[in-house]
Amino acid sequence: MEPVADLGFAQLDLARSARCGFPEVVYGEGKTVEHLLSIVQTMAHAGQSCLVTRVNDAQADQLHQNFPLAEQDRLGRTFWHPSGTQEKYPGRVALITAGTADLPVAHEARATVQAMGCEVDLIADVGVAGLHRLLAQVERIRQADVVIVAAGMEAALPSVVGGLVAVPVIAVPTSVGYGAHFQGLTALLGMLNSCAANVVVVNIDAGFKAGYVAGMMLRGRSGKGQGS
Amino acid sequence: MEPVADLGFAQLDLARSARCGFPEVVYGEGKTVEHLLSIVQTMAHAGQSCLVTRVNDAQADQLHQNFPLAEQDRLGRTFWHPSGTQEKYPGRVALITAGTADLPVAHEARATVQAMGCEVDLIADVGVAGLHRLLAQVERIRQADVVIVAAGMEAALPSVVGGLVAVPVIAVPTSVGYGAHFQGLTALLGMLNSCAANVVVVNIDAGFKAGYVAGMMLRGRSGKGQGS
Amino acid sequence: MEPVADLGFAQLDLARSARCGFPEVVYGEGKTVEHLLSIVQTMAHAGQSCLVTRVNDAQADQLHQNFPLAEQDRLGRTFWHPSGTQEKYPGRVALITAGTADLPVAHEARATVQAMGCEVDLIADVGVAGLHRLLAQVERIRQADVVIVAAGMEAALPSVVGGLVAVPVIAVPTSVGYGAHFQGLTALLGMLNSCAANVVVVNIDAGFKAGYVAGMMLRGRSGKGQGS
Amino acid sequence: MEPVADLGFAQLDLARSARCGFPEVVYGEGKTVEHLLSIVQTMAHAGQSCLVTRVNDAQADQLHQNFPLAEQDRLGRTFWHPSGTQEKYPGRVALITAGTADLPVAHEARATVQAMGCEVDLIADVGVAGLHRLLAQVERIRQADVVIVAAGMEAALPSVVGGLVAVPVIAVPTSVGYGAHFQGLTALLGMLNSCAANVVVVNIDAGFKAGYVAGMMLRGRSGKGQGS
Amino acid sequence: MEPVADLGFAQLDLARSARCGFPEVVYGEGKTVEHLLSIVQTMAHAGQSCLVTRVNDAQADQLHQNFPLAEQDRLGRTFWHPSGTQEKYPGRVALITAGTADLPVAHEARATVQAMGCEVDLIADVGVAGLHRLLAQVERIRQADVVIVAAGMEAALPSVVGGLVAVPVIAVPTSVGYGAHFQGLTALLGMLNSCAANVVVVNIDAGFKAGYVAGMMLRGRSGKGQGS
Amino acid sequence: MEPVADLGFAQLDLARSARCGFPEVVYGEGKTVEHLLSIVQTMAHAGQSCLVTRVNDAQADQLHQNFPLAEQDRLGRTFWHPSGTQEKYPGRVALITAGTADLPVAHEARATVQAMGCEVDLIADVGVAGLHRLLAQVERIRQADVVIVAAGMEAALPSVVGGLVAVPVIAVPTSVGYGAHFQGLTALLGMLNSCAANVVVVNIDAGFKAGYVAGMMLRGRSGKGQGS
Amino acid sequence: MEPVADLGFAQLDLARSARCGFPEVVYGEGKTVEHLLSIVQTMAHAGQSCLVTRVNDAQADQLHQNFPLAEQDRLGRTFWHPSGTQEKYPGRVALITAGTADLPVAHEARATVQAMGCEVDLIADVGVAGLHRLLAQVERIRQADVVIVAAGMEAALPSVVGGLVAVPVIAVPTSVGYGAHFQGLTALLGMLNSCAANVVVVNIDAGFKAGYVAGMMLRGRSGKGQGS
Amino acid sequence: MEPVADLGFAQLDLARSARCGFPEVVYGEGKTVEHLLSIVQTMAHAGQSCLVTRVNDAQADQLHQNFPLAEQDRLGRTFWHPSGTQEKYPGRVALITAGTADLPVAHEARATVQAMGCEVDLIADVGVAGLHRLLAQVERIRQADVVIVAAGMEAALPSVVGGLVAVPVIAVPTSVGYGAHFQGLTALLGMLNSCAANVVVVNIDAGFKAGYVAGMMLRGRSGKGQGS
Repeated sequence: MEPVADLGFAQLDLARSARCGFPEVVYGEGKTVEHLLSIVQTMAHAGQSCLVTRVNDAQADQLHQNFPLAEQDRLGRTFWHPSGTQEKYPGRVALITAGTADLPVAHEARATVQAMGCEVDLIADVGVAGLHRLLAQVERIRQADVVIVAAGMEAALPSVVGGLVAVPVIAVPTSVGYGAHFQGLTALLGMLNSCAANVVVVNIDAGFKAGYVAGMMLRGRSGKGQGS
Repeated sequence: MEPVADLGFAQLDLARSARCGFPEVVYGEGKTVEHLLSIVQTMAHAGQSCLVTRVNDAQADQLHQNFPLAEQDRLGRTFWHPSGTQEKYPGRVALITAGTADLPVAHEARATVQAMGCEVDLIADVGVAGLHRLLAQVERIRQADVVIVAAGMEAALPSVVGGLVAVPVIAVPTSVGYGAHFQGLTALLGMLNSCAANVVVVNIDAGFKAGYVAGMMLRGRSGKGQGS
Repeated sequence: MEPVADLGFAQLDLARSARCGFPEVVYGEGKTVEHLLSIVQTMAHAGQSCLVTRVNDAQADQLHQNFPLAEQDRLGRTFWHPSGTQEKYPGRVALITAGTADLPVAHEARATVQAMGCEVDLIADVGVAGLHRLLAQVERIRQADVVIVAAGMEAALPSVVGGLVAVPVIAVPTSVGYGAHFQGLTALLGMLNSCAANVVVVNIDAGFKAGYVAGMMLRGRSGKGQGS
Repeated sequence: MEPVADLGFAQLDLARSARCGFPEVVYGEGKTVEHLLSIVQTMAHAGQSCLVTRVNDAQADQLHQNFPLAEQDRLGRTFWHPSGTQEKYPGRVALITAGTADLPVAHEARATVQAMGCEVDLIADVGVAGLHRLLAQVERIRQADVVIVAAGMEAALPSVVGGLVAVPVIAVPTSVGYGAHFQGLTALLGMLNSCAANVVVVNIDAGFKAGYVAGMMLRGRSGKGQGS
Repeated sequence: MEPVADLGFAQLDLARSARCGFPEVVYGEGKTVEHLLSIVQTMAHAGQSCLVTRVNDAQADQLHQNFPLAEQDRLGRTFWHPSGTQEKYPGRVALITAGTADLPVAHEARATVQAMGCEVDLIADVGVAGLHRLLAQVERIRQADVVIVAAGMEAALPSVVGGLVAVPVIAVPTSVGYGAHFQGLTALLGMLNSCAANVVVVNIDAGFKAGYVAGMMLRGRSGKGQGS
Repeated sequence: MEPVADLGFAQLDLARSARCGFPEVVYGEGKTVEHLLSIVQTMAHAGQSCLVTRVNDAQADQLHQNFPLAEQDRLGRTFWHPSGTQEKYPGRVALITAGTADLPVAHEARATVQAMGCEVDLIADVGVAGLHRLLAQVERIRQADVVIVAAGMEAALPSVVGGLVAVPVIAVPTSVGYGAHFQGLTALLGMLNSCAANVVVVNIDAGFKAGYVAGMMLRGRSGKGQGS
Repeated sequence: MEPVADLGFAQLDLARSARCGFPEVVYGEGKTVEHLLSIVQTMAHAGQSCLVTRVNDAQADQLHQNFPLAEQDRLGRTFWHPSGTQEKYPGRVALITAGTADLPVAHEARATVQAMGCEVDLIADVGVAGLHRLLAQVERIRQADVVIVAAGMEAALPSVVGGLVAVPVIAVPTSVGYGAHFQGLTALLGMLNSCAANVVVVNIDAGFKAGYVAGMMLRGRSGKGQGS
Repeated sequence: MEPVADLGFAQLDLARSARCGFPEVVYGEGKTVEHLLSIVQTMAHAGQSCLVTRVNDAQADQLHQNFPLAEQDRLGRTFWHPSGTQEKYPGRVALITAGTADLPVAHEARATVQAMGCEVDLIADVGVAGLHRLLAQVERIRQADVVIVAAGMEAALPSVVGGLVAVPVIAVPTSVGYGAHFQGLTALLGMLNSCAANVVVVNIDAGFKAGYVAGMMLRGRSGKGQGS
């Protein structure tokens, strides 16, 4: 296969699936509907599944008309057009949010994990100011092989969760907050300084990245990683 | 009484005790030993108690020679020279630290609360990554009328504590941390964005301020506040 | 009572009133009108009072249709739907603003204090550049058991007020200013570095938090705190 | 076993090994030699292995006198005192540095991975300005199940590596650089904004955290994770 | 010639072409259509070529009506109205973008290079996460006498390119990114800290400056610089 | 006179006195004692007075040996070697500090005002937390034609002073403070956002600049300015 | 006269004219048209002149209907309603801008200087990149008794001007620029670090403050200052 | 030739000279004397010239003992050990500093330009506050084919120089300054926002980079660039 599809306005990396284990993921923000359709069609013709993130309403409507069977998550702003039957991987991701306002980021993460063929369990609105809500879910969280925590404001949740489990925790700071929150910067810094040793961090609102790495970890557990 | 003692290098506010309920507190950092001694002696002669914070070792030694009966906390870097018998106030402050490295700041807060005639209960090293350590102390914390929490790193502890009690929580960010901690800035920002409604904040490493306001709250509870 | 009401999109912490002395307060920003109505109704059915902050006009109109007897402060953007008769607490909060532009934040604080059953005295537009305006109010301010100061720009007012009273001062930085004010950051930093020992700080524009902690202090004075 | 050993100055979380899969790791910075020895001895008596990070020379010398058989990495500033025989886990971590100045951080990561019973392959000084140095190592890197990349300056290496492998990449920004590098902040920000989807980030110079999460991933691959 | 044309609202520097080798370039942002037309006409009457950058749609439409033969690049938002025949200079600029979203900045650079009479070769969407796309273009890039690289996100591309060529690389950070990208600040900082010695930097989104300096370098190569 | 004295390591601007009304002022920091001596001697030989700021102890000692009659202020770190008899200007500068720790900056300002031939009245330690200290000095301050205020921490003093006088106030932020003071940045930002209209600002710890502009204002009042 | 007019929503400081030499200036931004009208009318009834800044179009239209004789500067967004005949002061302000985009800020400064009864000479668009434009105006600038310089971008102009004159220079950073200009922060920082000793600074876009202090300086020169 | 020399602690890129036109340059900071000697010797044995920057005194002394004929610039902290006879390139670099404190950075740049076989003309201490010093050198500066400007404080010089010449200007911000200079950040930001179109920027204190790119431009002018 040609490693690159030159569309003029973009050079699609068609070799990524073979090289990295998953096709190139398309970032929808700022792309015209025409360009987006062209990209999705090119990947479909190349027999590759296609995940698009940050899809706005106009893009979503047009994509639905052209790919009515594709899965869309309007809250998470994702589009997923699989090619052929997808392999399923064992293991599970626990996906936890501190508040309801963190749900769009969590949905982006969930759609990504599912696109990678993995199972995800969403547990929403269990922030630390009402600790009993979290403690009631501990056994459920301990069923997971990797945990994603999406939180804004002071982002205390990943540290508390990190101390309760024996698996990696991927922390996603969200831009939820006001004043000295600085559009998510405070949450980001808090997560980077977590006192829990098993917490790693991605960019603000980067639900996709958290889901991607979580899925990659589960795939690795199944011996489907590159080292096999 | 003269409201101001003019020492040339400083104008001591001798009216503060009557006006604000506690004598002027002296910030030791950067003062020569001679100046410091002169200030303490002036306040003693005026019949006022004297609290000094940020006392370094050289200052502490010289102060001890001149005021051997005064109380010093070398870890908290405080000096306390009471004048006459001190009034005691009912109520209690719970003083909690996330880690052992937060102890100097906590000691400064403790010395301040005690100088104000109030009782304080220090509970150290109960950070959220080992939540059982904190949960084991909840009943003890709930005995308090105001809570101080000193924490560095991501400073998640005030939010968790805030959600467990029905009294004000004064959060003190400490400069404990490294990298993207920025000498306490991350802890400060996290506390300001706490999801717990009962959390107020003071400056980085400002154990004195936290102790001062806590003491003032307890005094107010006893009807000794200004509104009485 | 069930400690949590699971609405799908949110897990209401119905145990908070018993645990923390006041029901969960709802942050209106970003919530759909439907979600907001559902939350308020759930809390009403559970026999709990409900305070909502950051209510926009569309939310306010719809809430008014459904809860015509509830109190709304359009300037402060608050909604308050009490359940049963409210207990009143003795003591008083002085609520001071530096300028007229700080009034929305002050109104949010006032509505919160009142929802907690406490009395509040609003003194507006007494910034330090016209000091006689403030000095004319000193005796009135000294009647209070706790003081809230809302100020933007350089936020000098809390330091001046702090030096005039013998009670805690809760400083609320507002986003009022321009240029190197950075949406309230300058006011926040100034307040954190106040030379007055009795000043604690909350997040930028966080009138709710200031009012909440002030109310909690007054409740504690009445022996209604947790330690009783 | 008692979940906490109360040393007065610290509350050792002895339950962490059971709960999180690895004993509490001790942060050496700022601790007195006496406190450090006391902690290590307590953990040894409790039959727990003990990893200490950020060990300075004075601490290292004293620890060596008391625990001559423990492993120390002076460049990485680590101390490792295992208890009993250690379980070994299959899989491998590739540990890559952009320059020689990143080696101390890499050594901290390596010691941590090894303490967790996993194999690690260190590949140093393959920064992107001499791309052939990296390309010569690609097959070796592709043998790994997880990759750690330590880099300072503009930190371009994780993005390049991320695009060459099908496993998670844990990026560690180092404080190596000058001027507008801001002690590692530039490297941190670059890594958070990596265009490669499989890159997660830890705090500046946090070699320990990178190694810890890498080890935890390998353990999970072996079915030794919590979900098993 | 008069060195300055005083338009009341502006003082056009008509001496710049003689002094600096190129006429004053007009920054369109914030200018009324009337002012812009007046400026372009004044320069045309003075027999000077005129380049306008940051032209919005309304400005572009009106300029087209008045100067139908002038060249406009709507994506790059440039307007170019040459005066007389333009001298052509030998040599070539390679203009590389990391992604498609960097194209507007690249177009601004391209229009500037061409206005200066130099040849430019645009190579788009060859970011480092798919390294083969870049490596496939290395020989083409090595044909150039100066390279411009426009990149957002972590901006790793200039360092990789810088290590592959023996000519200066002008790096243009773009505001493409989200979260901790801070509208291009992260890309800017990364480029300033590039480990490649031949990388210089211009302001965020400053495609014009990159093109201008590139053109000036080529002119210098032809012995048309000031030193000749 | 030659407008420039070329010392090899420096080009002394000997024309500045005629052009700007005062000779070039020498910044001592980082200069070798030899260079400093050479500069002072050159200016003396040219018949120009010489003010040096930021003089450290070693420089001060050596300067004293060579210029025993010159005036030095060790706290303010200034050296002043006048040439011939100095003209005196009418008017007065009030120089106010918030605390004793601001005195070094105030001394630098005072030495500068005096070197310019103007009278200065230093009023120290009258910060706003003890407002009666300031109010007791108001009439004295109102005798001045320009006011300098040096303050650290939250820097509230310039706003209060600005509202009490009818002359310009030059605010000098000092690096006095800790935690979120950021070496004077908080004081600087507060002063820039002063609600008093007559407050202008200089750099952190820039006592020299404040004194220089104050002296220039007084000179202008005497009709000795450039416009005369 | 009553020192304060209590309008409910504002407390007008009617004593300011006597105390500070000029009536309270009204900041229009964020005020309703009704409030603004009420304030202007109250000041008019009190026989005080009234300057309003940051007047938007809606406010301006309504103010014009009610005060048709008042002076408005739509570009500078000012409103000036004098009371009685204004005293004129000798001396002159030179008001210089680096570019045309700095004109709105300059107009605000000009209207303020004129309201204070002083003469102002506006010299626009003489930025340093075309130095001859500035040098052509030097003699004109040297006629002034105080200079205001408004500049955005790198704000080099105040340093160059400062070195050419013997009077104070008030530098106003403007928010004109893009990218790493950060809405005027870069210009502000540059001005604070000016190598010219006679440069003082006001907030970003604070044309009013610059004009106010310039006017106050001229008044002082006339012996109309407070010290007379 | 082997493209890489693997020293264990470093992988020397011996292919860089062929690929990039100049051998790998060694950054001395943080390297042990032994490592530094080993690197220089390896490059000498490979027949490659060797430039080392940021050489401290201990390194310099030891290098001198081993390579007594190598050139060292102690102020610029450079070491240059050429291999064989060096080719000389026509053209000239003008190297300008704003103050004497910028000389160390300028010396680093000068040594680099000379190592590349190009001529450089150093013009020191011609900052803009004494404009006649700069104007006196304009013709000399116009002899150059590329200009380097090193400046700290507000860094106004590159904009002024940029407007006077018709060649590229490489601006090097230096860390010279205090207070709100932030170790060179203000100078850096000012240079990035220069109103002169021909100004590009390198990192703070990066004299080496400025010299390197200047040298590369001159080489390109001689037809010795890669495109030839």
